[in-house]
Amino acid sequence: MTPTSAMIDRTLHTVSQQSPLIHNVTNMVVMQTTANVLLAMGASPIMAHAIQELEELISLSGALVINIGTLDDAWIDSMYVAQRQASSLKKPVVLDPVGAGASQYRTSTALQLLQSGVTVVRGNAGEIMALAHASIQSKGVDSLYGSEQALEAAQQLAQQYDCCVVISGVKDYVCDKDTVHVVEGGDPLLTRVTGMGCSTSAMVAACCTVESSTVLASVSAMTCMAHASERARLQASGPGSFYPALLDAIYERCCV
Amino acid sequence: MTPTSAMIDRTLHTVSQQSPLIHNVTNMVVMQTTANVLLAMGASPIMAHAIQELEELISLSGALVINIGTLDDAWIDSMYVAQRQASSLKKPVVLDPVGAGASQYRTSTALQLLQSGVTVVRGNAGEIMALAHASIQSKGVDSLYGSEQALEAAQQLAQQYDCCVVISGVKDYVCDKDTVHVVEGGDPLLTRVTGMGCSTSAMVAACCTVESSTVLASVSAMTCMAHASERARLQASGPGSFYPALLDAIYERCCV
Amino acid sequence: MTPTSAMIDRTLHTVSQQSPLIHNVTNMVVMQTTANVLLAMGASPIMAHAIQELEELISLSGALVINIGTLDDAWIDSMYVAQRQASSLKKPVVLDPVGAGASQYRTSTALQLLQSGVTVVRGNAGEIMALAHASIQSKGVDSLYGSEQALEAAQQLAQQYDCCVVISGVKDYVCDKDTVHVVEGGDPLLTRVTGMGCSTSAMVAACCTVESSTVLASVSAMTCMAHASERARLQASGPGSFYPALLDAIYERCCV
Repeated sequence: MTPTSAMIDRTLHTVSQQSPLIHNVTNMVVMQTTANVLLAMGASPIMAHAIQELEELISLSGALVINIGTLDDAWIDSMYVAQRQASSLKKPVVLDPVGAGASQYRTSTALQLLQSGVTVVRGNAGEIMALAHASIQSKGVDSLYGSEQALEAAQQLAQQYDCCVVISGVKDYVCDKDTVHVVEGGDPLLTRVTGMGCSTSAMVAACCTVESSTVLASVSAMTCMAHASERARLQASGPGSFYPALLDAIYERCCV
Repeated sequence: MTPTSAMIDRTLHTVSQQSPLIHNVTNMVVMQTTANVLLAMGASPIMAHAIQELEELISLSGALVINIGTLDDAWIDSMYVAQRQASSLKKPVVLDPVGAGASQYRTSTALQLLQSGVTVVRGNAGEIMALAHASIQSKGVDSLYGSEQALEAAQQLAQQYDCCVVISGVKDYVCDKDTVHVVEGGDPLLTRVTGMGCSTSAMVAACCTVESSTVLASVSAMTCMAHASERARLQASGPGSFYPALLDAIYERCCV
Repeated sequence: MTPTSAMIDRTLHTVSQQSPLIHNVTNMVVMQTTANVLLAMGASPIMAHAIQELEELISLSGALVINIGTLDDAWIDSMYVAQRQASSLKKPVVLDPVGAGASQYRTSTALQLLQSGVTVVRGNAGEIMALAHASIQSKGVDSLYGSEQALEAAQQLAQQYDCCVVISGVKDYVCDKDTVHVVEGGDPLLTRVTGMGCSTSAMVAACCTVESSTVLASVSAMTCMAHASERARLQASGPGSFYPALLDAIYERCCV
């Protein structure tokens, strides 16, 4: 099944109609941006990490996002508890392996989460390659590789862990164990604003709450971000004016 | 006493003239936004949580904001220490019980803070109802209820804890143990940007540093945010462009 | 050597060409803003604090920023480990002593970091004076003093710790142990947006990765921020619209 425009539109529209609660155990740099992107698409974000409340909060939520961007031992514990609760309730889990490959600590944490069962993993080429081949080195949180170069790694991960793997880049790729879908478009200014990839992971999670095909959910989120970035570019003089225009464009696409 | 426009204007003007230091023990999602809103109204924000410095910093501050949005055990300790210090120095304490009702952990922490003495508590209808009736369930951090539905709960809390209770919603209500004041207006885009309620709590704290009537202080802050959101709406294409326009409108109202 | 416009332009241009990775152990209020400012100037930010990965990440980085804005004991440990690693690899370390003087905890932490060896320290007048004379009191994180008043303190610190000291204010001063350079200009709206000083510290770090003269690196960063703020002011109606315009202006200056 190849996602059509109509299917993507319906997925995005259903998110804004249902306003699913998305639980985020995410990094401190992107919390605000991620919350604003989820709100712009019509979803309802919550960020919480205390182990004492994760079971209750995840019971209320439609999906879980785990993002390792500013991980430490205490937060990793929260990630594992959150993942266990979401998995036991059959709720979608989206993993954003920020900086996998840049440190052993990140790579091994991301792999452990992957092995424990995720619905979708979304990263840049370097991160996806690092998860497939522990020897790949990333440059911090940005990728040294084009998304095409990570395609084999993505397919391998999709098969090994029976999940959907999304590679962000100039072209985005959405792979499950059998198929590969390409999402074209998207403006390069996305790489000049922090948290754009992380926010897209959260959009994937929101789409997973209304659409059981993880491929369609992922393609819908990636397409929404790509198209919104192109609209935003038309009104932007640089990365500063691009970001509010992007939120406006997501909102217009999903909620108006 | 019913707050008049002139009284509200004078309160806001005095904040920007005196530029009070507002100490925030607040959540990680809204720290930046809260700081920017306080700066836009002419106040001076500080965010700090280390127990080793709370006494000194709160001695320098005009008021304390406690916001439980991303609470954990270590941060709860900081909240209690901060509250004790502020109370012992007779400085206003504003509690924002983010997500009360969504988990026992949140509800019980918020109740403990309330019982230890706060000047104003500001929340949405679900949060205020959860504090009055532990059985109310919230949907994450957004409210399933209209602000009118929480009015009885707010009045009960105001009497029980001898504090001012503010319910945010389509209409805002400001209650002390004897009176109820309504603040009308405010644009719905406020619900599509993260941290707007949390920032309003911080504005209430800033107004409490210059105005001993907690009702007037709260009405001034809620009115400022409501009016600024309406002005911002005129220039906004969506939630992205709304947020900078809102800061501009707060700044213009309070500082120009 | 007095930095000329051509030297400043070359420094900024080289940053955007080389896109150095800048490691930040920084405060929670300004993480997002700092990342966006670094991206706008063409650098690549990473924020991480887990001791388990600091050695690896700092090996990949061109410079380290330590900002004590929301310090606690665990984060202070991370700051010391990060500083040790950066120093042992001869990578530039920029210290932002946010709120030094407002609490003993901040002042003593900042002094300990200074004594362990930093390349540049950038603060407002109150912070710089507090580091030179422990008796100075700051008002939270904003300064009660003009930058001129801190000049003697800055020169004393530069000599005592053999580092470059930058005072931000209406005029900025860049001092090493022998010289003082003034950077004029800059719009007052910079004081109405949170994280502007912190972000400038990160810009200094980025410039230090491409320019061995810490004076030239610091003057380049301060000049870039001052000029960008003046350009941004032309399009801004207040602090809200000023911030995106500032990012656009930094981007245009450095990357276009």
